[in-house]
Amino acid sequence: MRIIVVGAFGDIGRAACKELEQRHEIVTVGRSSGDFQVDVGDLNAVKSLYDKVGTVDAVVSCAGDATFAPLSDMDQEKFMVGLRQKVMGQVNLVLAGLDVVSDGGSFTLTSGVLDRDPIRMGSNAATANGALAGFVKGAAIEMPRGLRVNVVSPGMLDVSAARYGAWFHGHKPVASHDVGLAYAKCVEGALTGQVVIVE
Amino acid sequence: MRIIVVGAFGDIGRAACKELEQRHEIVTVGRSSGDFQVDVGDLNAVKSLYDKVGTVDAVVSCAGDATFAPLSDMDQEKFMVGLRQKVMGQVNLVLAGLDVVSDGGSFTLTSGVLDRDPIRMGSNAATANGALAGFVKGAAIEMPRGLRVNVVSPGMLDVSAARYGAWFHGHKPVASHDVGLAYAKCVEGALTGQVVIVE
Repeated sequence: MRIIVVGAFGDIGRAACKELEQRHEIVTVGRSSGDFQVDVGDLNAVKSLYDKVGTVDAVVSCAGDATFAPLSDMDQEKFMVGLRQKVMGQVNLVLAGLDVVSDGGSFTLTSGVLDRDPIRMGSNAATANGALAGFVKGAAIEMPRGLRVNVVSPGMLDVSAARYGAWFHGHKPVASHDVGLAYAKCVEGALTGQVVIVE
Repeated sequence: MRIIVVGAFGDIGRAACKELEQRHEIVTVGRSSGDFQVDVGDLNAVKSLYDKVGTVDAVVSCAGDATFAPLSDMDQEKFMVGLRQKVMGQVNLVLAGLDVVSDGGSFTLTSGVLDRDPIRMGSNAATANGALAGFVKGAAIEMPRGLRVNVVSPGMLDVSAARYGAWFHGHKPVASHDVGLAYAKCVEGALTGQVVIVE
């Protein structure tokens, strides 16, 4: 398959690529690195990305920011970051890709653990994660041409623990290899409308 | 208790009021009717609402639009309606209310069935519903002063079936009275961080 991986250079994106590149051609997309660059928060930019990349058999998204801040410090602007980037950004990759991805292809998005196992300062990410779970459930039944859509929801990765562990007290890091497998399951399997939890 | 009900004049808001007004003072808020008016999508408007209403012991939100349209017709503007109104709007009621609601008080938001039992044209609402589930889970652990936050997730109400039934093929309408009870459980009980399903 020819697979586009958006957000290919974060810890999760690297885990997905490491598994998928063993068997597939990977087109990497980052904000400032990779074969192509995009701001997923802008649907027109995403459409332009697909025009440049050409036909793909699967889209993997490991992209999208959220604001980490105490609930009492949140305001509309901070909270909208997660809704515009992590939610709308990943949804844009699906909306713009409906006519682009090959018949029977797939979209695999990325959420995370915080809507089932919350941490302090995580309310925006928890909201975005829940939104993506709702989206794949709702969108899966309307996908044309046998397309599929799922979301991988990993815990904090082992390779991220040195940087983020202080926020994730008591969370057991998940093996990056297992995270990679979850993307393979979504891309190469037949699931649709699922939240694939990695913990 | 003194309870503010935002979105008091929709089918769900009326069901909530009918149950709660038996025991409590209700301040009704609508977009164009009620004791006060507000656009929940604007945090400053929500702050101004609370200034005018004064102290309350509970906030009930039955407010917030989403776009109903086929997935293939969705674009960023249509999809953002649910994120700005149904998600951010209800989150705004919490953010602005953190210093306003009495100690031990509560926020009760409203989602719906579509993230667990999707229908065609429902992807934006499914996304918003999932987002609200994630939000209450994440926010509950950061609430100050013993405040609580939950979301009621009702199926299509019996009183709404004549208008919306054609979109909800095979969905069993839920009794409005039972929907009212769910708000009472959230407001008068001790739950927090929960999705209270009514079906």
